Amino acid sequence: MKKLTRLSNTSCAAGALMVSALVPLLVSVLGFAPLVLADDDLTSQTKVEVETLINSSLASNLGFSIIESLTTEVGQRQAGSEAEARARDWGVAKFKALGFKNVRIEPFEVDYWQRNAEHAEIISPFPQKLMITALGGSVATDAAGVTGAIVRFATLQDLQDAPLTGLQGKIVFVDEPMTRTQDGSGYGVAVRKRSGAAAEAGKRGAVAALIRSVGTDHHRFPHTGQMRYAADVPKVPIAALSAPDADQLQRALSRGQIEVKLVLDVQSMGKRWSGNVVGEIPGQTDEIVIIGGHLDSWDLGTGAVDDGAGIGITVAAAKMIMDLNKKPKRTIRVVMFGAEEVGLVGAKAYAEQHKSELDKHMVGAESDFGAGKVWRFETRFAEEKLGIAEQMHRLLAPLGIARGANTASGGPDMGPLRQLGMPVVTLKQNGWDYFDLHHTADDTLDKINPEDVAQNVAAYAAFVWMSANLKGDFRAD
Amino acid sequence: MKKLTRLSNTSCAAGALMVSALVPLLVSVLGFAPLVLADDDLTSQTKVEVETLINSSLASNLGFSIIESLTTEVGQRQAGSEAEARARDWGVAKFKALGFKNVRIEPFEVDYWQRNAEHAEIISPFPQKLMITALGGSVATDAAGVTGAIVRFATLQDLQDAPLTGLQGKIVFVDEPMTRTQDGSGYGVAVRKRSGAAAEAGKRGAVAALIRSVGTDHHRFPHTGQMRYAADVPKVPIAALSAPDADQLQRALSRGQIEVKLVLDVQSMGKRWSGNVVGEIPGQTDEIVIIGGHLDSWDLGTGAVDDGAGIGITVAAAKMIMDLNKKPKRTIRVVMFGAEEVGLVGAKAYAEQHKSELDKHMVGAESDFGAGKVWRFETRFAEEKLGIAEQMHRLLAPLGIARGANTASGGPDMGPLRQLGMPVVTLKQNGWDYFDLHHTADDTLDKINPEDVAQNVAAYAAFVWMSANLKGDFRAD
Repeated sequence: MKKLTRLSNTSCAAGALMVSALVPLLVSVLGFAPLVLADDDLTSQTKVEVETLINSSLASNLGFSIIESLTTEVGQRQAGSEAEARARDWGVAKFKALGFKNVRIEPFEVDYWQRNAEHAEIISPFPQKLMITALGGSVATDAAGVTGAIVRFATLQDLQDAPLTGLQGKIVFVDEPMTRTQDGSGYGVAVRKRSGAAAEAGKRGAVAALIRSVGTDHHRFPHTGQMRYAADVPKVPIAALSAPDADQLQRALSRGQIEVKLVLDVQSMGKRWSGNVVGEIPGQTDEIVIIGGHLDSWDLGTGAVDDGAGIGITVAAAKMIMDLNKKPKRTIRVVMFGAEEVGLVGAKAYAEQHKSELDKHMVGAESDFGAGKVWRFETRFAEEKLGIAEQMHRLLAPLGIARGANTASGGPDMGPLRQLGMPVVTLKQNGWDYFDLHHTADDTLDKINPEDVAQNVAAYAAFVWMSANLKGDFRAD
Repeated sequence: MKKLTRLSNTSCAAGALMVSALVPLLVSVLGFAPLVLADDDLTSQTKVEVETLINSSLASNLGFSIIESLTTEVGQRQAGSEAEARARDWGVAKFKALGFKNVRIEPFEVDYWQRNAEHAEIISPFPQKLMITALGGSVATDAAGVTGAIVRFATLQDLQDAPLTGLQGKIVFVDEPMTRTQDGSGYGVAVRKRSGAAAEAGKRGAVAALIRSVGTDHHRFPHTGQMRYAADVPKVPIAALSAPDADQLQRALSRGQIEVKLVLDVQSMGKRWSGNVVGEIPGQTDEIVIIGGHLDSWDLGTGAVDDGAGIGITVAAAKMIMDLNKKPKRTIRVVMFGAEEVGLVGAKAYAEQHKSELDKHMVGAESDFGAGKVWRFETRFAEEKLGIAEQMHRLLAPLGIARGANTASGGPDMGPLRQLGMPVVTLKQNGWDYFDLHHTADDTLDKINPEDVAQNVAAYAAFVWMSANLKGDFRAD
């Protein structure tokens, strides 16, 4: 494929000449041969630079080292916490140290919810502890906890279909499992029980709710994550069980009635400051290519795969571009979003704060699906611009990246901008193991493969450089 | 190999005749063809029965179901706790339900140590929680905890080699890793730091000690386990860090001085009752073949691999034998040992309580290395009896079991009897993953493969039946 491409583009003299000097070194060091395409939306010059970026990114450990720095020097950084504030300081310092321009914090307010202590146990007939964690936003129990007989529902739908009476004084247990998939498509289904179980339980008079964690591992790590209450429905405390504990509860229930005690010492603390941290590589125009990850994490782990990885990948990709020492046509803006986990609060604040320049946002992509290799290039461009996507994909393909559909989300924090019409790209990562770690104490640096991060950095650097120097754009004309 | 054996033993008419009737069924159902050896120490009849036992064991789920029952209906069962007492009641009921005779609890006293709460955090310069667990027997910290700068030692030997001054007010961190091995040989080396670090730290004026967990996983599960203080040395509190947290502390230290706070709310509660639970298949003589596992576990998990597995495997093996409906020559005694984890207290009590019949103990084997397949048949027989071991091994080999050395330990709880001269066998299990789970909260039923348990049951049933009906014995004449 590569060879064919090169043979069919012999007219591109200048680019070919530049490349020829680099080929022996690049091929020998990295096994990558630059490919040269005919000029179209991407100039030959851009294509050569993309090859350079891919090779330099694959040879660099910068992405991983940024993740290492964030997870070590800050650790967890829950939305609204003092730790998230320290993470913003870290972000500003990191951007400045790397040479980014216009470095700033764009503040906004967020509701801060805090976990103090949590505990659950089977009281009878088989007394034993259960590993649980409160879902974000849950109300607390009394200090003495809440005790009740367990009523199990195999799925959220089963609970939704249950009568509105009959659960008074009970603890509802929604045992719905999550399907392991490469593309994360199991999450959307499984997460409904995290959002909705408390309201369904409260509606039916239950005193608390437990869910099987939204996750794919078999370790004793409960997975936290944001939940929601419904208006006019009693608020009941809700926690997630680790998968082995959900199994245990299921086995215990198969022997008869089970009483469980749940103690959640958690509190909603009111408004706190959060913020998006922004750094730029100024371009020749006021058009913007926006990439980033989210700076906040849940409080249990150190937020390595969620989303230290996204921060490391996108900051390093921009730094690779900076090191080309060539001013891009468009400004490259890297955003470390705050308060993603609690409802895309930073993303919404960004869209609001930047509404006057929304039409300058040419394309956006967030990395927020761990640190697995990118395997698919997904877009959401105007139909008439899909030819550009094909050209871009040809330069990404050597990284092992397939062409995906034109239905990309762009990542969670691109949602508000996408909904306002911004074209987006998803450099889809392999998420096979992502939900083993997601929102658990086990989300730590040792789970990340530096080589996979480098491949991500290469894909982002290539995508961003192409987007920043493209003749056209991705919107409908 | 099997075919050759059968051809070379055509003189064995009676056995061959019995076998010929069974062969089609066994081969078709299980793929196992009985093999027939010349009569020697093992009669042809015994060999046929061994084949029957292997086939019935491989087809049975009993071993796994016993582990399931224990870990579900009791859960953790720390030595001396009320949970261990419930486990003894469970053991008595299980033995009786399965038809064992002379079922009894043989009580003894044990020091009971209890974990209430534990917590550690980096105070400065990177505030964050660390996942730790107190080692069994550790003293508590003050309620407010103990705070100190971390001084790291790469190995226990480095700490032992350090001067006796210079650690006043510090928290010692022994970062020695454990090597992953199939045979568990990495444990003996690594566990020295668990036993010895507190004394070495106390001797040098440190205020506390932390160790990298004795384990091979990369999850945020600290591994507990018994520690020891030395006479005339100040007792300092000691806890284990999970591997990711030990990594994190190492990374933080690479940036400069680190202050850590450690809070251990633990207490030594004095003497409590423990006991060994015994069940038997009475034989035609007062000679005894003893097998078993230990009933107690650490408090963090549900003690599935350590040592619910050993209980399930050995009880099920004896039940397979019971179902032969043939009275063995020797009594088969199954012991669920109490209080193994805190210093083989049950094993020592057994040896003391049974000292009058020690010479009746013909051979012993404990299963206490998880639930991996048996891959090696180790013995500790009189040299002149190694021919019998070879004969026994021939019948175990079809299970994928190699012949090992004549230096078997017999398992921890066989130690006191072995030291008093009892021959022992170790049916060595694959321990590749064992120390991923050992003494952690993650030691739960889902980590156990029922097929592997069945292979263990088959190996034990075969070994025990051979030993119980052998013409000779394993001691020097």
